Amino acid sequence: MKIISLMTDFGTGDFEIGSMRGVILKLAPATKIVDLTHDIPPQDVLDAAVILSRHFYYFPPGTIHVVVVDPGVGTTRRPIAALIKDQVFVGPDNGIISLVYQEATKNNWATRIIHTHNKKYWMPEISQIFHGRDVFAAVAGHLSSGVEIQELGDEIKDPVLLDLPEPVLSDGMIQGIVMRVDHFGNLETNIDHSLLKNLSRIVVKCNDHEINGLVNTFGNAKDGTLVAMIDSSGQLSICVVNGSAQNYLHAGVGTSVEVTFPDLERRN
Amino acid sequence: MKIISLMTDFGTGDFEIGSMRGVILKLAPATKIVDLTHDIPPQDVLDAAVILSRHFYYFPPGTIHVVVVDPGVGTTRRPIAALIKDQVFVGPDNGIISLVYQEATKNNWATRIIHTHNKKYWMPEISQIFHGRDVFAAVAGHLSSGVEIQELGDEIKDPVLLDLPEPVLSDGMIQGIVMRVDHFGNLETNIDHSLLKNLSRIVVKCNDHEINGLVNTFGNAKDGTLVAMIDSSGQLSICVVNGSAQNYLHAGVGTSVEVTFPDLERRN
Amino acid sequence: MKIISLMTDFGTGDFEIGSMRGVILKLAPATKIVDLTHDIPPQDVLDAAVILSRHFYYFPPGTIHVVVVDPGVGTTRRPIAALIKDQVFVGPDNGIISLVYQEATKNNWATRIIHTHNKKYWMPEISQIFHGRDVFAAVAGHLSSGVEIQELGDEIKDPVLLDLPEPVLSDGMIQGIVMRVDHFGNLETNIDHSLLKNLSRIVVKCNDHEINGLVNTFGNAKDGTLVAMIDSSGQLSICVVNGSAQNYLHAGVGTSVEVTFPDLERRN
Repeated sequence: MKIISLMTDFGTGDFEIGSMRGVILKLAPATKIVDLTHDIPPQDVLDAAVILSRHFYYFPPGTIHVVVVDPGVGTTRRPIAALIKDQVFVGPDNGIISLVYQEATKNNWATRIIHTHNKKYWMPEISQIFHGRDVFAAVAGHLSSGVEIQELGDEIKDPVLLDLPEPVLSDGMIQGIVMRVDHFGNLETNIDHSLLKNLSRIVVKCNDHEINGLVNTFGNAKDGTLVAMIDSSGQLSICVVNGSAQNYLHAGVGTSVEVTFPDLERRN
Repeated sequence: MKIISLMTDFGTGDFEIGSMRGVILKLAPATKIVDLTHDIPPQDVLDAAVILSRHFYYFPPGTIHVVVVDPGVGTTRRPIAALIKDQVFVGPDNGIISLVYQEATKNNWATRIIHTHNKKYWMPEISQIFHGRDVFAAVAGHLSSGVEIQELGDEIKDPVLLDLPEPVLSDGMIQGIVMRVDHFGNLETNIDHSLLKNLSRIVVKCNDHEINGLVNTFGNAKDGTLVAMIDSSGQLSICVVNGSAQNYLHAGVGTSVEVTFPDLERRN
Repeated sequence: MKIISLMTDFGTGDFEIGSMRGVILKLAPATKIVDLTHDIPPQDVLDAAVILSRHFYYFPPGTIHVVVVDPGVGTTRRPIAALIKDQVFVGPDNGIISLVYQEATKNNWATRIIHTHNKKYWMPEISQIFHGRDVFAAVAGHLSSGVEIQELGDEIKDPVLLDLPEPVLSDGMIQGIVMRVDHFGNLETNIDHSLLKNLSRIVVKCNDHEINGLVNTFGNAKDGTLVAMIDSSGQLSICVVNGSAQNYLHAGVGTSVEVTFPDLERRN
């Protein structure tokens, strides 16, 4: 039995997601379908890529993640299925796998990316405005039913990857950026907690504001306070307690975030 | 293992849907429950009937579709279970199966409609304001657990059917209507793509506006342009790119839509 | 195969619920996960407790209900797993089980409450702001995979319980309160229908308004009318037909509701 997760920008109420579930179950009735989220901001490929990278490793080996954030639907952009480590990502070749792929490169995980052009594994009729159902759900259903990934088309070595600046580490400083803004206005950076964990004291700077140290949780500071914390995805985040750091700092995706270590010492 | 799809006008956050899931699983623990949609406009039976007809055939044979759009709950309207082709529809007898039934008539599909009055297959206590849980979920759970449809009550031959005008075809013209308006303001007509597919060139008329030809997808025209296309359900639709055709044309459910073929020729 | 229901105050679109599903399926791939609701008002423990008590008994024996309404996340409040009757409730020890526990006491159901402090059954890394995933989903996943509840930690006898006034019955009168207000403004009381079922005629009083008798369903009265009825959870409720009783009566959680029986007689 395979698990398929669904992630789209359709909004939770959309009935088209229902037909994607039907397509999958018709091809592979024993599939367990779970929703990752359907509230990606419309056509926000970067947001989908970030959320995917933060969540895929909670799922069991063999999970198939279908991602339909597809501004290029009906154009020549390729459909792909990417086997990365032990999970498969199915969707348009527009950068949705960028962060997972980056992690694969860093960790030397096996990757195999297939241009899923074999129409044998699509629906017999294809709507030019809904590949989510007619291409991606169908491909995922076939994978779940036991079709091997290489049967879906030809391997490619040049998937579309978003330009993702990595945090820059130099003596006494980490230079990063805001990667996503959640619906509360919290700013999630590309600075992973692993870069900070052995540091005795840090100062976070963003748009001329300085934050001294990290709080463990929201309850540790008063309403309206600008704080830095490690969020539930393990990333350095800048937040305003019961408020919006986005508004407070006039910041957004791409804004610079700087971490300095006044003590210039490491615990171990 | 049976599949049960759920479709209601409760809104996605409603916790009562949770209790429907419980009722089903208590009766038939192995059932696979999937949501079709919970965002039918309140009490809009026609909208539910249209969406049902566009989606049921994506589901595998044996699927049980529970539809709870039920303005008559607690009144004398009958509860029904309709076996049409190879799938079952459970809900109030208020017209929700109208379009599926129409298609069955056209295609000579077998149909068997049962008035599910046998209280043995209802919950022991019935809330007069929530038959979704106490009648329909219970009936669906029993069906999923192996109860035969004829045990649920007596066959009826007079299900409530909505008055659904079929498109009228005459030489050089198709006369249809708008069947539903989606939440973007796109107008879906009752004119199926199969009526148009061999035509060389078409003109779509609606409320004194003329649209020349079809676009394949939204990306093919500029923002604010009035376009016609085949939507993802295979129906002729009128849309405004990143706008609302409903507002643009002051149109709604029932508005006339006319298709003419200036070339009066067929490709094959 | 175990069933796990999820109930949170995250809102339906939240992607973190997706990672909770992943954690569960990684530990117990055959688990059937269903949503109870994700639209509990933020941090409203009482509302979660009420909804839980109204719905758990629709689920099959052995169901594991994960409730994440957790204002105290990251503080010293205990995580618990409560076996009550034949179902298990997993979440923070903040009162979410109060009404189920009250019912257990009344009915002499077996209860066993474990402080789930055994970190062997948590995720290896714990986010201080998301125990829903790292503690509660993990604990539920282990339970679903066959871990015995007593392995999760030590039994406790002092779970946090909300102060829940029971309705007071005296000759000719029941004194209750409003327990929750739904999003339509309907007022659900703590007066169960079982207290009313053998009464010939009742008058419901709330904030200086009197309602004579019960209606069976909304359709039985005109728009704007203040009515009393038994809601779908079997509780006496005060509603305004297509309006808000909350606004009409300036009432809320805790407002007094009085039921009198003018005839002072019982049917049987």
